[in-house]
Amino acid sequence: MEKIWDIVVLGGGPAGVMSALQLAMRGKNVCLVEQGPHRLGGTCLHEGCMATKSMLKTAEIYQSIRQAHEYGIEASVAPLDLNCTVMRKNDHLKALNSRLKQMAVKTGLHIEQGFGSFLSPTRIAVDGPAGRTELQANNIVIATGSRPRELAGVAIDGERILNSTQLLQQTQLPKRLLIIGGGAIGCEFASMFQAFGSEVTLIECADHLLPREDRDTGETLQTSLEQRGIRVMTGRGVAAVQTNDTMAEVFLDGRSSPLEGDRILVAVGRTPNTDSLNLAAAQIDCSDEFIVVNDRLQTSQPHIYAAGDVINTMMLAHSAMQEGDLLVANLLGAEKRLPADTTPRVVYSFPQVAAVGITEQELAEDSYRALFQPFTESGKALVDQRLEGHIKLLVDNTTNAILGATIIGDHATELIHELALAISQDISLGVLKDVVHAHPTLAESIWDLARHQG
Amino acid sequence: MEKIWDIVVLGGGPAGVMSALQLAMRGKNVCLVEQGPHRLGGTCLHEGCMATKSMLKTAEIYQSIRQAHEYGIEASVAPLDLNCTVMRKNDHLKALNSRLKQMAVKTGLHIEQGFGSFLSPTRIAVDGPAGRTELQANNIVIATGSRPRELAGVAIDGERILNSTQLLQQTQLPKRLLIIGGGAIGCEFASMFQAFGSEVTLIECADHLLPREDRDTGETLQTSLEQRGIRVMTGRGVAAVQTNDTMAEVFLDGRSSPLEGDRILVAVGRTPNTDSLNLAAAQIDCSDEFIVVNDRLQTSQPHIYAAGDVINTMMLAHSAMQEGDLLVANLLGAEKRLPADTTPRVVYSFPQVAAVGITEQELAEDSYRALFQPFTESGKALVDQRLEGHIKLLVDNTTNAILGATIIGDHATELIHELALAISQDISLGVLKDVVHAHPTLAESIWDLARHQG
Repeated sequence: MEKIWDIVVLGGGPAGVMSALQLAMRGKNVCLVEQGPHRLGGTCLHEGCMATKSMLKTAEIYQSIRQAHEYGIEASVAPLDLNCTVMRKNDHLKALNSRLKQMAVKTGLHIEQGFGSFLSPTRIAVDGPAGRTELQANNIVIATGSRPRELAGVAIDGERILNSTQLLQQTQLPKRLLIIGGGAIGCEFASMFQAFGSEVTLIECADHLLPREDRDTGETLQTSLEQRGIRVMTGRGVAAVQTNDTMAEVFLDGRSSPLEGDRILVAVGRTPNTDSLNLAAAQIDCSDEFIVVNDRLQTSQPHIYAAGDVINTMMLAHSAMQEGDLLVANLLGAEKRLPADTTPRVVYSFPQVAAVGITEQELAEDSYRALFQPFTESGKALVDQRLEGHIKLLVDNTTNAILGATIIGDHATELIHELALAISQDISLGVLKDVVHAHPTLAESIWDLARHQG
Repeated sequence: MEKIWDIVVLGGGPAGVMSALQLAMRGKNVCLVEQGPHRLGGTCLHEGCMATKSMLKTAEIYQSIRQAHEYGIEASVAPLDLNCTVMRKNDHLKALNSRLKQMAVKTGLHIEQGFGSFLSPTRIAVDGPAGRTELQANNIVIATGSRPRELAGVAIDGERILNSTQLLQQTQLPKRLLIIGGGAIGCEFASMFQAFGSEVTLIECADHLLPREDRDTGETLQTSLEQRGIRVMTGRGVAAVQTNDTMAEVFLDGRSSPLEGDRILVAVGRTPNTDSLNLAAAQIDCSDEFIVVNDRLQTSQPHIYAAGDVINTMMLAHSAMQEGDLLVANLLGAEKRLPADTTPRVVYSFPQVAAVGITEQELAEDSYRALFQPFTESGKALVDQRLEGHIKLLVDNTTNAILGATIIGDHATELIHELALAISQDISLGVLKDVVHAHPTLAESIWDLARHQG
């Protein structure tokens, strides 16, 4: 008799693998469909969060050595060996992937190697190296993630025109790098390669960097990137791209002379991997390219759940993890619903940017005030010689509740969590005033803001 | 007619200067008694928090260059120029002191140069460079701070046997440094000088480092310091100290052969500066060396307040600031009382240690459980190659409330603030489980702990 799985999970990224492991640990019969155990961890691990953070750490150290003289330290450093940096990154990814493989073995999670697609609402075809297998399941989780979005008219050739996945495997440092897209990915790669020693130009068609964030956030980041030597062009669409044997050129709207470089990175967002799932066979509804889910993460077929980049929430690993936790709870009999969004949005540029809660464009004028605490006023930032950036809070005029927060500067991606907790628990600025912060820290600037403007 | 000040503040450290400035800003007639404008900021600025953090930043960068090869970076660095590091630190302190001087001018705060002492409950004598002045005041604030505690039988000679203030002015790196005292100050100096290139021995008479913290915290830190090459000796009292022209020797209890070094740092805590205030003339009660205050910070004379290191709360700059805020509110007519203690305790050793809330020795066995999340399980720590340390939470068995928290590792002094907020607002571990943390961060380990053990 054909085996009927309790749950088949499609995709082994942050939403899929963690759900599958948790469900297997709780005694469910779980089959995870993925290209193979070596792909456990998905985009986040292999080409996203972890891969970039490994290389950004190298960039951070490399840059700090080049600036050591500002601290009275006499140091010299050889040109960066990008090959070595990439190999070190690959070692890190291998170690992280191994952990997942070990957990899969430990929990008895079955991995079916191949690409899954629907045959019916309860049947999945898996096309693997040894041909097609069919799976039958009571519940299915779709967590197939996303891939780099392509830009119309710009063909990724893997040589001169690269996506982020490809750029992470380059072993030769481009002398001149043109980056199309000034979102989180573009800003991180710009920071990284500038630190490594490339000449970087960053192009964003919106009128400020990080278009999802407040205008002043993008503008402050732009100033900082420019001070580091990155050329930033905002409000400019790409008209055309040309390559030849020696270089690549980007023509911008309304500009006759092209920008020249050795490599072009196209970083214009990501597309959900929903097009090859044959969703029609399971009668699963989509809106644009995203799978439609209710607040319990059920698709139009209640026994089929979806999470991560295939649904229209933020395309972030930690959103995917939260969604994974939630659907696991629901598959185990709970009735959990997605809470109000207090997901931190983090950018590991130099300087870092982190935000949480509501942005100014989502708020009615006169309903709130924007309070700033610049790091120029922080003693810790002064002795660290890292004065750039600020903490910004959006505070409700009536209730004094903190609605949104942005931090630009050192450790912003860590510091944001105190404010994420405050926002998620409706803690007002007046309450923060009485929460003693250690001196001297950067977090103390949050206290200073509350004490003096709260 | 003699001028009667609204308020005379004795001492210009974190408690005194911030209170005096705030009161002056609110229109009060305020006189601050201090050795002079150049001393505004007190111990914290000149010999404490800020001075050490400036030099610790240099140490951090210097060390990261020496370890750059672990990140595939080929770098070389000249021996540390301690003189340059000290000058840079002095520049930072001058900049921070200037800010305070400017604020004093802006708010019209009068500074009376000299040392204050009581003549009566409303009269202060100030002995300054031009002789004695007398001040009359309606309210008085005592914030004269503390000085390094001396160790019986060990005379600080400023040559071979130094206190922390003196060591911060040395321009020659000691080849071998012996540190007596394994509290926060001892551990910070041990980390700093080991990073600079000294051979460091750290001696603590209690049975673990950081005796105020949980035993396992001190032991974990000890292991980390030893891995860096610091020799740590705990549970050993100092029997005697000898110096001669070429070196210094420390004889430990129960050990016949001495420890040898070039310099000895005595870092055995601090003594409140209350002995030369002539407190008897104002009938102000003390207990041991500390001024007794009620929870509104009033001394036994209700019109006289005390704050900072002269009262028996934690000897930390941020405790002093909190106390300053509180007495300012009360002097302006409020009835504010000291809240339950959720003051973060931070140690800028390598690795950093930070704690908040209750320690294990303060809790009844069986009333709580200790939960650990080691950074070896953190993806961010892995790619940063900073796997040491952990997050530890003490959680109430009945209510699931977080009672205490300790973090050892990178950025611990910043990361602790999320937990300080959680503890101060009675946020339970179950609530933290649903507060999404960004991936990949170190703060995410707090979320992981809550998700998997909460």
